Amino acid sequence: MRSLGFWFEFASTYSYPAAMRIEAACVAAGVALEWKPFLLGPVFAAQGMTDSPFNLYPIKGRYMWRDMERLCAAQGLGWQKPGQFPRGSLLAARVASAHAQAPWVAAFVRAVYVANFAQDRDIGRTRTVTDILQEIGVDPAPVLDRAQSPEGKQSLRNLTDSAQAHGLFGAPSFTVGDELFWGGDRLDAAIAAATGCI
Amino acid sequence: MRSLGFWFEFASTYSYPAAMRIEAACVAAGVALEWKPFLLGPVFAAQGMTDSPFNLYPIKGRYMWRDMERLCAAQGLGWQKPGQFPRGSLLAARVASAHAQAPWVAAFVRAVYVANFAQDRDIGRTRTVTDILQEIGVDPAPVLDRAQSPEGKQSLRNLTDSAQAHGLFGAPSFTVGDELFWGGDRLDAAIAAATGCI
Repeated sequence: MRSLGFWFEFASTYSYPAAMRIEAACVAAGVALEWKPFLLGPVFAAQGMTDSPFNLYPIKGRYMWRDMERLCAAQGLGWQKPGQFPRGSLLAARVASAHAQAPWVAAFVRAVYVANFAQDRDIGRTRTVTDILQEIGVDPAPVLDRAQSPEGKQSLRNLTDSAQAHGLFGAPSFTVGDELFWGGDRLDAAIAAATGCI
Repeated sequence: MRSLGFWFEFASTYSYPAAMRIEAACVAAGVALEWKPFLLGPVFAAQGMTDSPFNLYPIKGRYMWRDMERLCAAQGLGWQKPGQFPRGSLLAARVASAHAQAPWVAAFVRAVYVANFAQDRDIGRTRTVTDILQEIGVDPAPVLDRAQSPEGKQSLRNLTDSAQAHGLFGAPSFTVGDELFWGGDRLDAAIAAATGCI
């Protein structure tokens, strides 16, 4: 059984529906799932972009907001257009990267996405991340301490470097060995690759 | 029954697998298909881009070429990375737009894509377009005359203007009424919208 790397950015709209279904999809297929939070900012900057492509190209942004409504409706997910886009994702990403092996990481990832895209909460605030940890039954203090330690910060830098080494240019992305798949629509193809079905 | 508009550009890689399966998919679903050739150049220019995003963002381009190999293999389509990208599509697009109601338009569209992406032929040359018309059993001379007449040229300009009016920013795209779907992965969603299933 091969593993599937799930590369996500908490500020990324299209990462939200992918994050909500990926664990169940991998379990159903018998594929090991690796949570790979990273930051899109440095990835976009390496391509000469200083903002989300959805802001840089408004015509594409308009499409994306409508598309998200349809995607979330089709997947039965809550949706509320966030009052700010993109939102700061640094602390939440550090929590997820420093605790990628924790038994609660999947619940945390989903809760952050729901906060950002279904509840319009500011996930960039420490208070919001603290509240989310409490809501999923995790003691926030030691988790945040480790996330903000030098090792915690380095773990996210390493993942962001690794994303670029894998040729990632957006989120969500999926990797199976050296194969890269971009976009939530490719999750099924990535799972098929992981199971040896393609 | 609602109709589905298929917006395609002959130079567009991702339009190729969509073009190869769309007619059969629409027939199976009982959806009326409208062929909508247009030029991406003016659409990209309106966003400040002077070349294909796959050339402007090489990291995205590298992904696309590998992704096309996988997509064509999965769909059982021939694939050969074209020696030139993007290729000139003006004459082929004029033929398709001026003859969008012709009984042979579907065969012509598919033959042009096969020429560009499976046979590495230069579809930008008049001779290649002429050969393709002959290969599908159509007398080239009157077809090319009409395509290059003032009315033929205007029909393609009108479609390109209409693409921008619909908010298109890439190809392939699909429209059902005012709803826009971008990318070959969304063909099934577009067909579902046309049949009232979403």
